[in-house]
Amino acid sequence: MERCDILGACSEEPDRLTRPFASDAMRRAHERVMEWMRQAGMEVRRDNIGNLRGRLEGGARPGNPTLLLGSHLDTVRGAGKYDGPLGVMVAIAAVQRLRDRGRRPPFAIEVLGFADEEGLRFGSTYLGSRAVAGRIEAADLDRTDADGVSVREAIRAFGGDAERIDDDRWRGSQPLGYCEVHIEQGPVLEAGDLPIGVVSAIAGQARYAINFTGEAAHAGTTPMEQRRDALTAAAEFVLAVEADARAHDGVVATVGQLSVQPGAANVVPGEATLSLDVRHPDDVIRAASTRRMLEGARVIATRRKVEVDSQLIAENAAVPCSPKLNSLLARAIEELGHPAVLLASGAGHDAVTMSVLTDVAMLFVRCKGGVSHNPAESVATADVEVALDVLDRFLELLSAPASM
Amino acid sequence: MERCDILGACSEEPDRLTRPFASDAMRRAHERVMEWMRQAGMEVRRDNIGNLRGRLEGGARPGNPTLLLGSHLDTVRGAGKYDGPLGVMVAIAAVQRLRDRGRRPPFAIEVLGFADEEGLRFGSTYLGSRAVAGRIEAADLDRTDADGVSVREAIRAFGGDAERIDDDRWRGSQPLGYCEVHIEQGPVLEAGDLPIGVVSAIAGQARYAINFTGEAAHAGTTPMEQRRDALTAAAEFVLAVEADARAHDGVVATVGQLSVQPGAANVVPGEATLSLDVRHPDDVIRAASTRRMLEGARVIATRRKVEVDSQLIAENAAVPCSPKLNSLLARAIEELGHPAVLLASGAGHDAVTMSVLTDVAMLFVRCKGGVSHNPAESVATADVEVALDVLDRFLELLSAPASM
Repeated sequence: MERCDILGACSEEPDRLTRPFASDAMRRAHERVMEWMRQAGMEVRRDNIGNLRGRLEGGARPGNPTLLLGSHLDTVRGAGKYDGPLGVMVAIAAVQRLRDRGRRPPFAIEVLGFADEEGLRFGSTYLGSRAVAGRIEAADLDRTDADGVSVREAIRAFGGDAERIDDDRWRGSQPLGYCEVHIEQGPVLEAGDLPIGVVSAIAGQARYAINFTGEAAHAGTTPMEQRRDALTAAAEFVLAVEADARAHDGVVATVGQLSVQPGAANVVPGEATLSLDVRHPDDVIRAASTRRMLEGARVIATRRKVEVDSQLIAENAAVPCSPKLNSLLARAIEELGHPAVLLASGAGHDAVTMSVLTDVAMLFVRCKGGVSHNPAESVATADVEVALDVLDRFLELLSAPASM
Repeated sequence: MERCDILGACSEEPDRLTRPFASDAMRRAHERVMEWMRQAGMEVRRDNIGNLRGRLEGGARPGNPTLLLGSHLDTVRGAGKYDGPLGVMVAIAAVQRLRDRGRRPPFAIEVLGFADEEGLRFGSTYLGSRAVAGRIEAADLDRTDADGVSVREAIRAFGGDAERIDDDRWRGSQPLGYCEVHIEQGPVLEAGDLPIGVVSAIAGQARYAINFTGEAAHAGTTPMEQRRDALTAAAEFVLAVEADARAHDGVVATVGQLSVQPGAANVVPGEATLSLDVRHPDDVIRAASTRRMLEGARVIATRRKVEVDSQLIAENAAVPCSPKLNSLLARAIEELGHPAVLLASGAGHDAVTMSVLTDVAMLFVRCKGGVSHNPAESVATADVEVALDVLDRFLELLSAPASM
């Protein structure tokens, strides 16, 4: 918790925490994290994209497999102190415990402090974990920030070599898996009075842009029954989306953007454009829900004599967490006297990218009010201790010959 | 109709009709209108605010009362050719007919071409007719346009004297009334297959800014039942407004603006701000409808655990048209073989301001599709001919001793 406070002071802005990819604030954070990794007995290096990688070799023999732990070290603008860094800190603390007990598991451990999960500076997604998974493309490196600096240039300024990003790719033998500790960023654990939970799957997500087109008309002279109001159609759709999500367990659906044209108080809206975001850990359920919503939009449009069209903006499949890793996490939790509850992650995480490389698992820590991406982000020390105990026990369980 | 075409070419923009208050385009329009007024036998002057005023003295004796006719000569940006100018052209044509027949009614006629009804340049309302009604205030003259030019300066550049606006005020004896021909700007006459209609009243209007405040939350991690979504509350309100207006004859209610904060596709809206515009020719009915809508907003907010507040932005009382003038208009229409249908005006007009000075009446002319404020604005020559015949006959009826 103290270390999260220290990292919370590594910011680009004096009054709030903003730590973008490849920034000076990140450089200062890296200095501290490297120190803590070394204290825990790890060899530390920074790869080309700017991930910090601390490695503890396994005890049994050289060439044994590696377990990957970690999370991200970058933040959003005006961030809290825990979203990302907490997972790196807990991983380092678990390695420190091994060292303190003089133990070496029969596998290597690599703790990854990812360079870019939030995408604040470049509007990117998962640059750090994608470099490790070998999924960086040239277009990613050509992105520019608000000052016109490209990812390539930012990497060079930070000490990496953009031409050798491919070297960052995981090249060892098949890892044992990737396990990430992260704050929940939602209210489920708090509502269930649970310090921690095991993630069943990271929800799949579809995002659409939807446009209703009616006819702009004079607000004073156009009788109600002669209107083709795009906003009332959109309003019906917003409520239909909400009703469908409420009626189907685990579906979350959000209209987060809505704009109206021409947008004058005395003009009946001729156009309404909105975003639709639908998520569920089961892609089949999500697809069915999305289909019903879009079909509903067409029914509403037809009845109201307006046009509707929808455009798929992005779609990500759900990532199921590893049943094997999850059962070890659950066992660790239960041995420590807590109920092992499974919950889905509605947000994306580095584990999504890491799933192309290896089995993934996530341990969620309760956060106050489900608040994240906000200075009010808060976790309890006691809950973090439970997470650390669980990770520690998980490493032990994974060390048992039957688990390898 | 030809004259409307000619005025349609007096524009500040080459490709579309935009004729603001005190502009060069208005100056060119004035030159033509003055010529037509003089041809019809009127003495013409421009007052300080920039209204064009053509006067035909009455025949019986000096000092007889005056009937005011007219409409506005300014336009919105990208306007049609008829909203405003048509009423001035029909009035001039009616005076021309008197001259052609060698008749002088026993009252003077003053045709007013108002300088500013649309408020395009200064965001003002009715500067022209308010000068005649004596309702210009210092604050009106201090308004500035997009280039920082004040109304005062614009008046001076156009040849008026802003210090003598008070001279524009009607100072003669109590007028007989003010009668304005205008396109309907709505679809009612077209739907009823009617060339013209008599305005019963100009609707009163209330405009509110309404704000729903919930809690911004992560679209992926916040379960549906734990959300306090400001947009779903606003959507319910939009539909409740529509339902109430539909259920109460003659009420028109519009949400023309709606914006969402923070406005990201992956964030549950924490705030939704919208406009509400409610109109009805009967202020009591409008007030009751508005009360139900605002009360509905509170019920929705309470049920959804969000906050709502509303702020009255503007309120204008309804203006009833003169029963006496209307009965003469209706008689003229029926004598010409058309059904005399009454309809309310949902839009404001110079007649609203003129009502503080004298009795008002309005004759609406059918327009295609109810479209106005748009180059597609269209009226049929035959309908304009009916309006001219009616105005002509109206002047005759008003000349009868019993009407004076």
